Amino acid sequence: MTRAHNFSAGPAALPQEVLEQARDELLDWQGRGVSVMEISHRSPEYMAIATEAEQDLRDLMGIPANYKVLFMQGGATSQFAMVPLNLMGAASKADYLNTGHWSIKAIKEGRRFGGVNVATSSEDQNFSTIPDRDSWQLDPDAAYVHYTPNETIGGLAFADIPDVGGVPLVADMSSNILSTPMDVSRFGLIYAGAQKNIGPAGISVVIVRDDLLGQAADACPTLMNYQNIADNDSMLNTPPTYSWYLAGLVFKWLKRQGGVEGIAQVNDRKAAKLYGAIDGSDFYSNPVDPRYRSKMNVPFKLQDDNLNAEFLSQAAEQKLLYLKGHRAVGGMRASIYNAVSEESVDALIAFMADFEKRYG
Amino acid sequence: MTRAHNFSAGPAALPQEVLEQARDELLDWQGRGVSVMEISHRSPEYMAIATEAEQDLRDLMGIPANYKVLFMQGGATSQFAMVPLNLMGAASKADYLNTGHWSIKAIKEGRRFGGVNVATSSEDQNFSTIPDRDSWQLDPDAAYVHYTPNETIGGLAFADIPDVGGVPLVADMSSNILSTPMDVSRFGLIYAGAQKNIGPAGISVVIVRDDLLGQAADACPTLMNYQNIADNDSMLNTPPTYSWYLAGLVFKWLKRQGGVEGIAQVNDRKAAKLYGAIDGSDFYSNPVDPRYRSKMNVPFKLQDDNLNAEFLSQAAEQKLLYLKGHRAVGGMRASIYNAVSEESVDALIAFMADFEKRYG
Repeated sequence: MTRAHNFSAGPAALPQEVLEQARDELLDWQGRGVSVMEISHRSPEYMAIATEAEQDLRDLMGIPANYKVLFMQGGATSQFAMVPLNLMGAASKADYLNTGHWSIKAIKEGRRFGGVNVATSSEDQNFSTIPDRDSWQLDPDAAYVHYTPNETIGGLAFADIPDVGGVPLVADMSSNILSTPMDVSRFGLIYAGAQKNIGPAGISVVIVRDDLLGQAADACPTLMNYQNIADNDSMLNTPPTYSWYLAGLVFKWLKRQGGVEGIAQVNDRKAAKLYGAIDGSDFYSNPVDPRYRSKMNVPFKLQDDNLNAEFLSQAAEQKLLYLKGHRAVGGMRASIYNAVSEESVDALIAFMADFEKRYG
Repeated sequence: MTRAHNFSAGPAALPQEVLEQARDELLDWQGRGVSVMEISHRSPEYMAIATEAEQDLRDLMGIPANYKVLFMQGGATSQFAMVPLNLMGAASKADYLNTGHWSIKAIKEGRRFGGVNVATSSEDQNFSTIPDRDSWQLDPDAAYVHYTPNETIGGLAFADIPDVGGVPLVADMSSNILSTPMDVSRFGLIYAGAQKNIGPAGISVVIVRDDLLGQAADACPTLMNYQNIADNDSMLNTPPTYSWYLAGLVFKWLKRQGGVEGIAQVNDRKAAKLYGAIDGSDFYSNPVDPRYRSKMNVPFKLQDDNLNAEFLSQAAEQKLLYLKGHRAVGGMRASIYNAVSEESVDALIAFMADFEKRYG
């Protein structure tokens, strides 16, 4: 078996050690003669898995005690509805920052449940930058400010946590959670689909400051009400048990890498190398303002789009997979999440240099 | 490795062959050097998995062409909200049959979105039977009639598909889907959480007649609108890809067992043997009207509740696991879904006879 260099944007690469452990205990977990996916979520042995996963996530992110951690289903797209249904409250209005594809999706769904003020947007710059903070039109009476710290498709990322005064800050961290230290206490709510830095698709994490609970709209389905989920330790109904277990294995793996601080150093190196290779060439280019380049998703273009198919085909022969850019952007995209090794990034850079030599 | 006899009510036992295949290709699917859980849901190779799983389910259940098959998240509890949000329409009222724990949950959530008429209930008989059809108070103007063909906790099951005239029939088949042939054309909508007869927790199946789509309430979140899911082949957002793949493996396995017709014969034998053992003893008892006993979930009591702990402990020593009854009912419960072998049921019966000999 040769494992590939997997640059998929999501569902994305998982740590090989995690997959090996999952494989080894797939039919027989801890000598019990059953798989983790075959046991009740309410059994003491499963409850231990669930509790430990939450504690490990709390340790990794330094989550304060006044924040609830929820394990939910439906991915970030479900959260686009849950956030306004739970947090808009009597104000019935919120601010959104528009920095790309996923911001727009959140805004569109938010408008179905209340007033949405787009406080800033870089759409007229093709989402290649983030407007200066002093140009934002924030509403001091907004229920919250929603933003997307890392845009998976555009490869645009905030360099810092924005200051929005006393209004709760809500972040869709699907594609950058656990990749770099973040001060959780700066946020009202953080959510993330698992399928980039946490585990397989089908589970998501919500971290919410407890004073924001308990104001859900009447129209909010029971299973979308954060308060209900919190009151039932994310087991109001059967949770996605196997995905939760795998997320727990990823958290343990991340601790072994030196935690978020440790992996952030690797991530910094990986991104610096790859952007360096792109910027050092006239053959490859990245359109994003260098101040706001994503360390997780690196879109790049070849000098000539007619070479795209050849690039992808030759890359695949070298086991460099899933480099095709999103159709909205074109070109290439290398997603280099936590589980993508520095070795994989090195292999990509070597291939890019070789390809340029032959076609540049 | 010795596999246990697993009688868990859900998440429940999966076929050993399915787990073995999943294990063997966990790190390297079809020689690609990646796991199925590490690839994009929009990649051609994943799309093939998804399409084939749907087709296999259509084959197994004989689903007519005018029914959509949706793969969703959130389990049956999510459907308790989605059904009224999508189907109540202008009528804004529906009939519900109350036959136990899960019926009550569906009714309670349904009431949050419109008028709910409980057309019949066996609550005053402790859900030990199903009221005669001619006593039901059905409303001919109801948007639909909702029922629970198999109550997982009470072990109560409908013997036939009820005749409700021209009103669409909606069934929560979470714990009996694929266990016995069902004429899908008799239903407006069928839903089921996967974690009993389909696969791991975290994915659910919805089968809906296409003329019932397109009337969702304004308050319906985008991801809960069946029409949106159908229009996007269940890929409006990232689906739970690995669970969907595992469900596909279970469908293939079921085809190898002779399909639903084949497994139904095994299920009939398993249930007949176990109820026979219970009824043939003064030591064990089952409270359900024999006409309406579940073939999937068999609750039973010991003569003396003080023996329960000893029974469970000795059973576990024989690798007979997860036999404790639901706290609402007490006693024992053996869930004998498709993946629980006849050999496991035989082992349970032998243990029960031996235990009775020693303690009866």
